[in-house]
Amino acid sequence: MNIKARVAEIAKNAKKAATALARLSSDAKDRALLDMAEALTRQTGLLMRENAKDLEKATQMGLSAAMIDRLVLNESTIEGIAKGLKEVAGLPDPVGKVTSMWRRPNGLLVGRMRIPLGVIGIIYESRPNVTADAAALCLKSGNAVILRGGSEAINSNIAIAKILQSVLTKRAIPEEAIQVIPMTEREAVREMLQLEEYIDVIIPRGGEDLIRAVVNESKIPVIKHYKGVCHIFVDVGADFDMAVNICMNAKTQRPGVCNAMETLLVHQDIAGKFLPLAASHLKGAGVVLRGCDRTRRILKDIEQAKEEDWYQEYLDLVLSVRVVDDLDAAVAHIEKYGSLHTESIVTNNYQNAQRFLNEVNSSTVLVNASTRFSDGFELGLGAEIGISTTKLHAFGPMGLEELTTTKFIIYGNGQVRT
Amino acid sequence: MNIKARVAEIAKNAKKAATALARLSSDAKDRALLDMAEALTRQTGLLMRENAKDLEKATQMGLSAAMIDRLVLNESTIEGIAKGLKEVAGLPDPVGKVTSMWRRPNGLLVGRMRIPLGVIGIIYESRPNVTADAAALCLKSGNAVILRGGSEAINSNIAIAKILQSVLTKRAIPEEAIQVIPMTEREAVREMLQLEEYIDVIIPRGGEDLIRAVVNESKIPVIKHYKGVCHIFVDVGADFDMAVNICMNAKTQRPGVCNAMETLLVHQDIAGKFLPLAASHLKGAGVVLRGCDRTRRILKDIEQAKEEDWYQEYLDLVLSVRVVDDLDAAVAHIEKYGSLHTESIVTNNYQNAQRFLNEVNSSTVLVNASTRFSDGFELGLGAEIGISTTKLHAFGPMGLEELTTTKFIIYGNGQVRT
Repeated sequence: MNIKARVAEIAKNAKKAATALARLSSDAKDRALLDMAEALTRQTGLLMRENAKDLEKATQMGLSAAMIDRLVLNESTIEGIAKGLKEVAGLPDPVGKVTSMWRRPNGLLVGRMRIPLGVIGIIYESRPNVTADAAALCLKSGNAVILRGGSEAINSNIAIAKILQSVLTKRAIPEEAIQVIPMTEREAVREMLQLEEYIDVIIPRGGEDLIRAVVNESKIPVIKHYKGVCHIFVDVGADFDMAVNICMNAKTQRPGVCNAMETLLVHQDIAGKFLPLAASHLKGAGVVLRGCDRTRRILKDIEQAKEEDWYQEYLDLVLSVRVVDDLDAAVAHIEKYGSLHTESIVTNNYQNAQRFLNEVNSSTVLVNASTRFSDGFELGLGAEIGISTTKLHAFGPMGLEELTTTKFIIYGNGQVRT
Repeated sequence: MNIKARVAEIAKNAKKAATALARLSSDAKDRALLDMAEALTRQTGLLMRENAKDLEKATQMGLSAAMIDRLVLNESTIEGIAKGLKEVAGLPDPVGKVTSMWRRPNGLLVGRMRIPLGVIGIIYESRPNVTADAAALCLKSGNAVILRGGSEAINSNIAIAKILQSVLTKRAIPEEAIQVIPMTEREAVREMLQLEEYIDVIIPRGGEDLIRAVVNESKIPVIKHYKGVCHIFVDVGADFDMAVNICMNAKTQRPGVCNAMETLLVHQDIAGKFLPLAASHLKGAGVVLRGCDRTRRILKDIEQAKEEDWYQEYLDLVLSVRVVDDLDAAVAHIEKYGSLHTESIVTNNYQNAQRFLNEVNSSTVLVNASTRFSDGFELGLGAEIGISTTKLHAFGPMGLEELTTTKFIIYGNGQVRT
């Protein structure tokens, strides 16, 4: 069978499995998840052997140490994966939840009930733990999943999927509920993205290039975020200690992630005092600053920020800094250069806090807290399948509920329309 | 300026207007809507003169009487439009509503707040009332709208938009909040569907061909339904009077709409008694029946239903009828041939009612009520901008809330991640 036909068969089988999955009880799903956690731990040896093949090839191909590090499966990473599955088993099941119900004047009782989306395609890069994490979230939310990982993790991903499938079979759940695309050719992804008849949504996880390629080729709706150009605005009257603490956390705690701060905006009335203080901390942590003209009048030794810096997701210990006139100027800057991801204000002014929350329409907007909280776990969603910066369906961190939709359910007693 | 550039300018201006719209108070929006209702009524003469141009051209082009009928603006239809705008003014504003809020262990207060989607593109066919209706719903939900109606209503649509815009200007709201594409060329739509940078969602309203064409060309997410192949399953033990009444209403009250019944499924144990009774009523109303073999053993004079009949949206006084073994067979039939639109069960069996509601994952599922209730007004949404049969973002009838999304808002007091 050629690649096209094989991918189509995978997708068709996923759709068939989805019907059965949608009707599974929470108990049945949770028991399968707990069994999967146990099976992965029990098969640590097998997983490490398969993973060794990927690691060997990665070394031969000269992948960076950081990339190879993300590939590794060992006792501790496998234990981490198993723990994640157990946690998903412990989360509330969104499926079947009636989110609201009301009575119509004609006596009809109308409600909205959560149901799975159907078949979810996940396209991701090297980390093999995503295979198990994403599969668990899709199973828990009653969705079939088709997983397409990076070619550098193919042996690890196939091994993980086989173990998960063996548990499904033992529990009389269709094994096509969780499928890894076993071909590493680009053509397989391209074909997958055409199958709108079988696949309901595509979630790409990875760098901006991967995501743009998926969006351009897909006929299926894509839930995505391209990048996180996150801002912190330090208002006049802000508590300096709090502001420095939040900025340090947002920039340096994990600079390579999408919810790290990339641009610092400072109110002109405090810039002269706040910037030297913040700069001393940031530079102490190795952060390179790039400033606007007004910033450089205060911090004379830093680089000039160019126009393109304001659009930049550095994902590194680099920060662009701008002095702004007031809250309006800060909001306007975010509106122009932001990526609709995450923005925070540090302020003691009640009205400015409320205005920032109301007027900034990024997916996550904070007052007096680090941008790093823009995360499904940190916000209390219990899990995170990804972050969306497009407004349709989901906006911001996505948990289990975002893998469902609602249908209308209506209890009548003979009503007809007049 | 060429068509491409003009459409791009319209879209760019819409996006600019969207920022201002998102911040408008409910009062400001409602006052504008009430003014618009008044202005349309006051300008009845002008509207009828512009509409006459469209009617004349439609007659010359030999459009059907039904199509011309849908084009007409007169005192009564304009009064109807104005009444619609006043009703939208009276609906609750979804924007700014905090749908839920919770406290995290670290003290963060996390909530989700409704915000507008941004810029909405509506593509529709001849009825000029859609121009005002859709504009009102978008304005109320804080969205800018770009309207592309049928060429046969172009003068009417432009006239309506001009009147609405004059109210916006008087109330200091950017007039680009409501724009009609004034060019009738196909190229204008094609260009509109490429502008993902400026337009957030496309809602096509019309026949299946229009919608498929839009989906195929659009880079922007499309909220759509292709067709409504709606089913009623009459269970063993159902109240026959109620079942006949519901079937008659669902099939004959307005056969040309998407929530009319297209296929009747009857439990085998009652088919011998129920089918003759139902057939006598349906035939009396002019309905042509097409049956499966078992149906035709009972109703000997009806046509044979072919395989393609089960997929058919007749939009006419035609009904396909099938005898099924039981609830499972009915659910399986709906799963195979249905369009995820609307299905109803008529039953007195508690367990079957609950199973039908749980197992049928169409966008609207009813017990003992007509499929014709699948409608935003009838379900209590206050309005309807369209119906979605794809699961992403909205599923089923869409009201004002479906023209919004939610962002996370977070109140902290200095929290950082550890």
